[in-house]
Amino acid sequence: MEKLKKYVSVKDEDHFYQQGAVELLIFNFLLILTILTIWLFKNHRFRFLHETGGAMLYGLVMGLIIRYVTKSSDVESGTVYECEKLKTGPSTLLINITNQVYEYQYKREISHHNVNGHQGNAMLQKMTFDPPIFFNILLPPIIFHAGYSLKKRHFFRNLGSILTYAFLGTAISCIVIGLIMYGFVKAMVHIDQLNQGEFHFTDCLFFGSLMSATDPVTVLAIFHELNVDTDLYTLLFGESVLNDAVAIVLTHSISIYSPKENPNAFDAAAFFQSVGNFLGIFAGSFAMGSSYAVVTALISFMHLTKFTKLCDFPVLETGLFFLLSWSAFLSAEAAGLTGIVAVLFCGVTQAHYTYNNLSPDSKRRTKQLFEFMNFLAENVIFCYMGLTLFTFQNHIFNPLFIFGALVAVFVARASNIYPLSFLLNLGRKQKIPRNFQHMMMFSGLRGAIAFALAIRDTGSQPKQMMFSTALLIVFFTVWVLGGGTTPMLTWLQIRVGVDPDEDLKAKAASQSASNLDKNTTKAESAWLFRVWYGFDHKYLKPLLTHTGPPLTSTLPEWCNPVARLLTSPSAYGDHLKDDDTVYIINNDELTENYESSAHISVPAQESTGSIQATGKEDLQEGDLGLGGYKLQLQHTAGQPQKN
Amino acid sequence: MEKLKKYVSVKDEDHFYQQGAVELLIFNFLLILTILTIWLFKNHRFRFLHETGGAMLYGLVMGLIIRYVTKSSDVESGTVYECEKLKTGPSTLLINITNQVYEYQYKREISHHNVNGHQGNAMLQKMTFDPPIFFNILLPPIIFHAGYSLKKRHFFRNLGSILTYAFLGTAISCIVIGLIMYGFVKAMVHIDQLNQGEFHFTDCLFFGSLMSATDPVTVLAIFHELNVDTDLYTLLFGESVLNDAVAIVLTHSISIYSPKENPNAFDAAAFFQSVGNFLGIFAGSFAMGSSYAVVTALISFMHLTKFTKLCDFPVLETGLFFLLSWSAFLSAEAAGLTGIVAVLFCGVTQAHYTYNNLSPDSKRRTKQLFEFMNFLAENVIFCYMGLTLFTFQNHIFNPLFIFGALVAVFVARASNIYPLSFLLNLGRKQKIPRNFQHMMMFSGLRGAIAFALAIRDTGSQPKQMMFSTALLIVFFTVWVLGGGTTPMLTWLQIRVGVDPDEDLKAKAASQSASNLDKNTTKAESAWLFRVWYGFDHKYLKPLLTHTGPPLTSTLPEWCNPVARLLTSPSAYGDHLKDDDTVYIINNDELTENYESSAHISVPAQESTGSIQATGKEDLQEGDLGLGGYKLQLQHTAGQPQKN
Repeated sequence: MEKLKKYVSVKDEDHFYQQGAVELLIFNFLLILTILTIWLFKNHRFRFLHETGGAMLYGLVMGLIIRYVTKSSDVESGTVYECEKLKTGPSTLLINITNQVYEYQYKREISHHNVNGHQGNAMLQKMTFDPPIFFNILLPPIIFHAGYSLKKRHFFRNLGSILTYAFLGTAISCIVIGLIMYGFVKAMVHIDQLNQGEFHFTDCLFFGSLMSATDPVTVLAIFHELNVDTDLYTLLFGESVLNDAVAIVLTHSISIYSPKENPNAFDAAAFFQSVGNFLGIFAGSFAMGSSYAVVTALISFMHLTKFTKLCDFPVLETGLFFLLSWSAFLSAEAAGLTGIVAVLFCGVTQAHYTYNNLSPDSKRRTKQLFEFMNFLAENVIFCYMGLTLFTFQNHIFNPLFIFGALVAVFVARASNIYPLSFLLNLGRKQKIPRNFQHMMMFSGLRGAIAFALAIRDTGSQPKQMMFSTALLIVFFTVWVLGGGTTPMLTWLQIRVGVDPDEDLKAKAASQSASNLDKNTTKAESAWLFRVWYGFDHKYLKPLLTHTGPPLTSTLPEWCNPVARLLTSPSAYGDHLKDDDTVYIINNDELTENYESSAHISVPAQESTGSIQATGKEDLQEGDLGLGGYKLQLQHTAGQPQKN
Repeated sequence: MEKLKKYVSVKDEDHFYQQGAVELLIFNFLLILTILTIWLFKNHRFRFLHETGGAMLYGLVMGLIIRYVTKSSDVESGTVYECEKLKTGPSTLLINITNQVYEYQYKREISHHNVNGHQGNAMLQKMTFDPPIFFNILLPPIIFHAGYSLKKRHFFRNLGSILTYAFLGTAISCIVIGLIMYGFVKAMVHIDQLNQGEFHFTDCLFFGSLMSATDPVTVLAIFHELNVDTDLYTLLFGESVLNDAVAIVLTHSISIYSPKENPNAFDAAAFFQSVGNFLGIFAGSFAMGSSYAVVTALISFMHLTKFTKLCDFPVLETGLFFLLSWSAFLSAEAAGLTGIVAVLFCGVTQAHYTYNNLSPDSKRRTKQLFEFMNFLAENVIFCYMGLTLFTFQNHIFNPLFIFGALVAVFVARASNIYPLSFLLNLGRKQKIPRNFQHMMMFSGLRGAIAFALAIRDTGSQPKQMMFSTALLIVFFTVWVLGGGTTPMLTWLQIRVGVDPDEDLKAKAASQSASNLDKNTTKAESAWLFRVWYGFDHKYLKPLLTHTGPPLTSTLPEWCNPVARLLTSPSAYGDHLKDDDTVYIINNDELTENYESSAHISVPAQESTGSIQATGKEDLQEGDLGLGGYKLQLQHTAGQPQKN
């Protein structure tokens, strides 16, 4: 008899394995369907449905099937058991049921009003996977890929505008959504749809911050495919990348904002603490991310010079690169900072330094690996979003709240883009035209980050209402706005089919011609970047990569023994070669002009018959995009050595 | 007050995230250390420690630290609570503790005697992740990679021997270990180290089957690096790949062998049911794996011909390939078959058909992706093995059992290799020399599969004893035998630095010279392969890939409209080209001679000045390794069309 029981338990175990396989299989199946559909669509040049939209659609259908076709098997799961002996919930619970001990693992705390939702259906519960999976596994590759694939030349050309939209714009958006939602919440309380005191202003701000993370992946894919104007692409891409980081840290800061007394009254101390939190977490995450990248650069640099055989093992190199980048994320999370921000800046720094040290094989491998992971993770998330509309068991759909959120999201986007564009246009040489502004306004899609932030806490009723609303807004924006991108481009008469390099050269040339007279007056405006760039070029680049002048020429003479040890032998060669391209420019504005110099310097290089022309291209792409400064500073630095 | 409590719970949630990040970070850290160490070792040509051995070592050290440095935080977790209301353990348990409902998720059933082991230390419990993670996530990429990277030419040259070692050898090994262990168990009962009736003969056989899965990854890595004799490499690699599949299915069959009455008596019906199970599961898994690969081949084939734009999106192509291959694994698991076996044959079939249809970019991408995943998964598993020696809380180390297992493993390996080699040498032209046999005997390492099979069930005391013993044997074989590979190669005077292609040609040439007279007598011995190959070449290859003759020439005339639709336009071209290389051979034994024809046919190709020389190489690599047959049959098939 006991024997028999053992075999039954073995079969239970097997069933447990099968269950896990079925869930994964469902996701696989949905992703395969998505890929096939998108393949078909791309082939017929249908652009109204992006792969993420498709994934979401299939997820929705599958969620519907799971919800209404599978029957509730687990009758007892809705029942709450009493346990008087326990004071707090331990992480593992051992329970004796009919003389057999079972181990249970802590999952979460549940509000009393949610208990009913748990009636039934083990399948539904299995399909709702834990938020940590999003945050620790699915999001990092997406964000890292965004940082790693950032086109630095174009990005830094528009850096000022991008930072303005990302920081100031997100803050505006957060506050506007918070205010509008607070109005709607008050109205809901007034018509008795909501209890007084359930929804505080901080909750509205929390909702505002999570809804401020834009994710125009659909729009950007279409832009990329149609070769839309590079400036517009860069503005949107840069904004969405940085804006995610800002929104995440903002959400975190607001969630730990705890005024001492009345939660509706303004508490200056708590407010400033939140601002301090925001700055501290942002800076800490930035530091964490970039330091991991610097470590990677140092290791890969040492490999190439001292242990020359190491680039023979691209798998090890790629593995190290992958693990260190992921560690940046995990360390930040473990330290209580924001991993997503860390991994973003880790990606940017890896692209800036480490990428140059990798063997050509590893360069290709890392790029393709992260591209692939990004693709999979993105589609899994969107697929899961679709699923969750039917499988999540505590949805609260409040029509007034949803309507309010839709209004708030659009008003907030408008009060972000139009006023800021106006302000930026005052300073910009290359104005942001009206149709670009409309397009940016239109591209305020919400996606993975908003969803991930909303699902992170669904314990209380306000949070559940926010989650349900956020989900619907993601659906709406991805399908309606994403699908309308191509018609919108036509309607706004935005240029398509632009060759990014040609475009840049043309713009730069026209700019430099008209601006040469203003050079001296505005020379100081970019001094911060000059200082940083000088430091980067003179010390960091030679220390961390093989490019730039040798440290022996940039460091003071007494440091020579150390400098010689640290400089890559190939740096000397580069340095001498660069001396030929002596070229001094006095450009006035960093975000405008540096590219023109890079452009003009190309013929000089070509005339020296350099074989490393393609290598140079990479190098310019890889040095903060400050090609012009590089040449200028190199010349100055090279001078003493020559004499 | 309630507000405050809410914030506390938010912080708990955050703590939960941080905890997850710390665990992953520990693994990352260990893997980074491993990579750096191995990089150093490879550079200094130390070969006594392979990366997997290093990962295991670091895991061990980290396990030691976690065990003895972190303190037990969770005091209550050792207590068992009573619950009279429940009859069975539900998958989710809601418990009311001091007016707050907590959700708990079912983890496993625990024997009463294990309860004490759960005293303390949440960290330890976090670090012991679930067996499903091994089976659903870590193992599939390793096994798929083995199948995908199989060198088919060399594999099929030694197919007979490999199948003998894998099937017959594993069965012998399982029975020998089972018998020896049964003897030791009897002895242990005799000296009162074990209770009568706790350890049945089926348990011993179960242990025998799981310990029969060899994993000479360390040895193979060294072989690869030193270019050891190709036949030896192929025999070992082929044996270890197939032997995993056999051992897994065998273990499963034994675990569900349930004699009706006395578990020690032999029950013929139950035995034959187990044999039937073995065959059914093996065949089913094989069918599942290969059918997914055929579906992939069909899809990728359609893409290339009908929707020609599809190979422009290598990410989609790679994604589809990856997802369908993983689905093969998951479907087999969901259907109650063995996913590992399915994914192995899926890998082999993908390499045979689909690989030919992929765009060059996707070919490289899929290869590199699986290489990378294999690398990571392998090191995570070995790292985890090291960790688990100290973090697993229910180890039972019985010195006599461990000693018995060590003896059994070596005796079983000897009674597998030597008698089978003797038998095989009777039939083989190219004998397996004594020193190869010794080397194969020596390479009986145990690794990931044995561990994964052992950890799958650690509920009862016998199973825990098996798990602890298996773990120690893995440690011993990986470090001692793995570390001794290079000295052993020298001592046995085995050739190193062999160019595989040259070697094959030389052997084939010497063979074909001496064997031409026996051709006619043994022509039938390989008829099964001829039939299969003919079918594959005439119908499957043209249907699933772009190689082979057009279907219009191989199918009956009335099928022409369909055939024309299904044939790739490029097949006609290939076909015509191949006609030039008319070459008929009457080879006597498939595993011996087919390669000679491929060898001789190469100059013929070269003399026609084919530009597609490298394409041809791929093609030969990709067609079951039956290069000779291919040419022969193509000629016959081409004849009717010519007339």
